[in-house]
Amino acid sequence: MTQSNTQAIQRMLQTHPQIGQSPFEMNALLEAISAAFECAQICTGCADACLGETEHLAHLAHCIRLNADCADICGTTGRMLMRQTQPDTGVLRAQLHSCVTACKACGDECEGHAKNMDMKHCEVCLESCRRCEQACQALLGRLSA
Amino acid sequence: MTQSNTQAIQRMLQTHPQIGQSPFEMNALLEAISAAFECAQICTGCADACLGETEHLAHLAHCIRLNADCADICGTTGRMLMRQTQPDTGVLRAQLHSCVTACKACGDECEGHAKNMDMKHCEVCLESCRRCEQACQALLGRLSA
Amino acid sequence: MTQSNTQAIQRMLQTHPQIGQSPFEMNALLEAISAAFECAQICTGCADACLGETEHLAHLAHCIRLNADCADICGTTGRMLMRQTQPDTGVLRAQLHSCVTACKACGDECEGHAKNMDMKHCEVCLESCRRCEQACQALLGRLSA
Amino acid sequence: MTQSNTQAIQRMLQTHPQIGQSPFEMNALLEAISAAFECAQICTGCADACLGETEHLAHLAHCIRLNADCADICGTTGRMLMRQTQPDTGVLRAQLHSCVTACKACGDECEGHAKNMDMKHCEVCLESCRRCEQACQALLGRLSA
Repeated sequence: MTQSNTQAIQRMLQTHPQIGQSPFEMNALLEAISAAFECAQICTGCADACLGETEHLAHLAHCIRLNADCADICGTTGRMLMRQTQPDTGVLRAQLHSCVTACKACGDECEGHAKNMDMKHCEVCLESCRRCEQACQALLGRLSA
Repeated sequence: MTQSNTQAIQRMLQTHPQIGQSPFEMNALLEAISAAFECAQICTGCADACLGETEHLAHLAHCIRLNADCADICGTTGRMLMRQTQPDTGVLRAQLHSCVTACKACGDECEGHAKNMDMKHCEVCLESCRRCEQACQALLGRLSA
Repeated sequence: MTQSNTQAIQRMLQTHPQIGQSPFEMNALLEAISAAFECAQICTGCADACLGETEHLAHLAHCIRLNADCADICGTTGRMLMRQTQPDTGVLRAQLHSCVTACKACGDECEGHAKNMDMKHCEVCLESCRRCEQACQALLGRLSA
Repeated sequence: MTQSNTQAIQRMLQTHPQIGQSPFEMNALLEAISAAFECAQICTGCADACLGETEHLAHLAHCIRLNADCADICGTTGRMLMRQTQPDTGVLRAQLHSCVTACKACGDECEGHAKNMDMKHCEVCLESCRRCEQACQALLGRLSA
């Protein structure tokens, strides 16, 4: 069995020549990168799983829309957090805020479908959205300190 | 000669079944979509053009980094603005703010290289960043009104 | 009125320090970049416009799926073609082939909905898919020569 | 500790309403999705780590270029593989082939820098490229069978 993706990210961060200049504590950064990429992947999957719910499709249009936006935002946030060379703190802060906002909205939407329509993929997506929201919020706290 | 990309975007918006519910005025929306995608493309090009400046590469690392972030952010913003089905105003606002912040930072960085190092591709990128910053700021004004 | 996106791309290519080493003729390259980005944008829009067709949504699931894949593939192809620094010909050829394949499939799907269901956004998307298919096919011919 | 990203992807696949129609065996699909997203992330990180190697930057331009292309291609491939609703086999096959080609080229480039310049981040990237190449090649074998 190969290493997990998070281990690969950790090794990449540890061997980066400018990791010492990161404004973030290593474990918090690693969790946020992992959570942002997971949320991008899972939202891509949830949008497509909703699209496959032939019976309920009309009720899931808003969820598909939010999933698409949240996947794009989380993917961009994850790629920015992977980069350690000379970051711009103001740009990072604004994108982390956008990511927290999108994960909150998408998580709330999926929570409704998980509870009221028993959509299991929305339950998976809800967890990934909450994880990413918390991890990015933690980084935001560090940037404001 | 084929139509321009902006004409294609305009026709897509005009034929969208839910365009009537957009919070934005059509011309302002069209300009922001066009500007965001242009900025994503040009920042991708400027990062690579800087990478090809063998003599000056070390001085351009920060520019390459900002170009990469700005390309990701503008691409995400453009895709979100293309979508008209049941938008979330709060998520749009946060991402537009991130886009304005990134375009300001990247435009300022490119302006320095255009003036002090006569980097012509940075001059092209500067113009695209300013255009996108203004167009997204105009949409933000509409959302707050 | 600002310059068109294609003019900005042209200026970026002309100021790139390594444009002289491109395997492509300038006009063919410019058309392919412009067509790939247009198709990425329009497919993103068509997926969302189909999602907004509340009455016909169930019939459009396959179109939304193909639009999503085609948007991702064309966006990646456009970004690769924007880059002029030390390209890998084999990687370019494989991705151009994938792009031609996706645009053919997505264009055919949209053509059906344009003709049989009078979906106007699918007609716009069909044109962008055909344009991108032809432009990438033209570059492929140059790489094989 | 939260679940790993691969576990989240597995749960999303298992709860997808159309997973039964996948042309792929579950474990092979899961490994390919996980490997494609890991490679997209690690290539994004390696491009930036190379950019931070101030002393060796000129020698790493080709690696940065290949990393950028490979990150885009693997990200697109991963998103396509996450989608289970009505896939187009020909489009999947072409994109998987592009992914195998990019991972081979990028892995070879990083192998050279890992061996000859002792670049530790290139060693991490080499492993992710080889993993993704093998996983996508395995899916390709299934599609041709």
